[in-house]
Amino acid sequence: MDAIGRKRWSIAEGYIPSQSSFSDRALISHETACILNVGQRDAHVAITIFFADRDPVGPYRVTVLARRTLHLRFNDLDDPQPIPRDTDYASVFESDVPIIVQHTRLDSRCAEVSLLSTIAYAEA
Amino acid sequence: MDAIGRKRWSIAEGYIPSQSSFSDRALISHETACILNVGQRDAHVAITIFFADRDPVGPYRVTVLARRTLHLRFNDLDDPQPIPRDTDYASVFESDVPIIVQHTRLDSRCAEVSLLSTIAYAEA
Amino acid sequence: MDAIGRKRWSIAEGYIPSQSSFSDRALISHETACILNVGQRDAHVAITIFFADRDPVGPYRVTVLARRTLHLRFNDLDDPQPIPRDTDYASVFESDVPIIVQHTRLDSRCAEVSLLSTIAYAEA
Amino acid sequence: MDAIGRKRWSIAEGYIPSQSSFSDRALISHETACILNVGQRDAHVAITIFFADRDPVGPYRVTVLARRTLHLRFNDLDDPQPIPRDTDYASVFESDVPIIVQHTRLDSRCAEVSLLSTIAYAEA
Repeated sequence: MDAIGRKRWSIAEGYIPSQSSFSDRALISHETACILNVGQRDAHVAITIFFADRDPVGPYRVTVLARRTLHLRFNDLDDPQPIPRDTDYASVFESDVPIIVQHTRLDSRCAEVSLLSTIAYAEA
Repeated sequence: MDAIGRKRWSIAEGYIPSQSSFSDRALISHETACILNVGQRDAHVAITIFFADRDPVGPYRVTVLARRTLHLRFNDLDDPQPIPRDTDYASVFESDVPIIVQHTRLDSRCAEVSLLSTIAYAEA
Repeated sequence: MDAIGRKRWSIAEGYIPSQSSFSDRALISHETACILNVGQRDAHVAITIFFADRDPVGPYRVTVLARRTLHLRFNDLDDPQPIPRDTDYASVFESDVPIIVQHTRLDSRCAEVSLLSTIAYAEA
Repeated sequence: MDAIGRKRWSIAEGYIPSQSSFSDRALISHETACILNVGQRDAHVAITIFFADRDPVGPYRVTVLARRTLHLRFNDLDDPQPIPRDTDYASVFESDVPIIVQHTRLDSRCAEVSLLSTIAYAEA
């Protein structure tokens, strides 16, 4: 399949609640960037995290193999440093091949689960 | 009405929970691709499913008749094989005529229903 | 302010649950098309509703005054005929001036409210 | 990092419920515009609020510093005047440098939290 997508993406919303009503990994509050690489070459993605009141942090580096999807939890990022909880942030993704990025949050601060999702902003 | 839309679409997010709190079909946890074909010719759509750790599966073939909408549940796809539950996936839609694709998930793992929806990524 | 937006929009997802857990109008299950007209001329909008298994219905006609927003409930449309409940549908909006359309559903089939929203698909 | 984004954005949906089931600021019902400025110059943003049945109000002025994100609660805007509760509105953002805008609502009218999010409509 021909590559589809863009090389730069951004998610302006970001917030990982420190609270969860569940201990099951699937239901712990989390923010996810769903990344799809349909092409024949691996995608090397550099992620930069922006904050309200301090300098950006990054790059966080992830590889999305050719013809694979990676549903990346921001909760799991820890190099160069973990993303702080209960803190507003935003993110930019820069890839060397076209990818597609979709944003999802599962919020289980309360006993019931709430979800949001939106396509990220694409450019170039 | 003139055809509107694009011929290639992608949904980077995909996850069908195996659990549901309801037996009513409308409230069982499901992922849906809402496909709209406003044109005068039937749309022949080939769907490919991408995973994190194995080769893509497909094509799944569906037809969206002229001037009709099809709200396709990924749960119902079974040829060439069902989509595994509790597994991250992503999808690409390739149509021979312009269509519009919107993604929705209804999640009823917990007693209350949670919903998400977003327009898919379009190209060409 | 200069007009912004597009003249043709489409929402591929549509479903009005017949059930609600509330009698308060704000909390009754509903589908909304939020339409914004920032320009100096009134927008005359023709809406066509598409179904899975029968011919499209419409046009439904609404006017969005200059420099106004209209949060239109599909539940309220009744000319040429009401939109059936518990039925999959999709919609196309055709305006004579540029507008912006965003889709929202509030679902209160269960005791708690669930929300979804996404920007509609724009063209021309 | 090079600036990315657009200079004009619009969110057609807007509604701040007056009710909340929580007193914790994080869980009070709110509408947020998540604004990201990845460039080297501060973004001066003028926001205009549109209503169903009266003239637009604004501009509300906010600055998003270079290389920062601002998760702006519409609830907090009060100059030239607060945004009325339980009232449909829409918004337009005009910036002097490219930015990215994403819309989120947290709704806690009922005991459980519901979320929605979508990318705003971009132009220019």
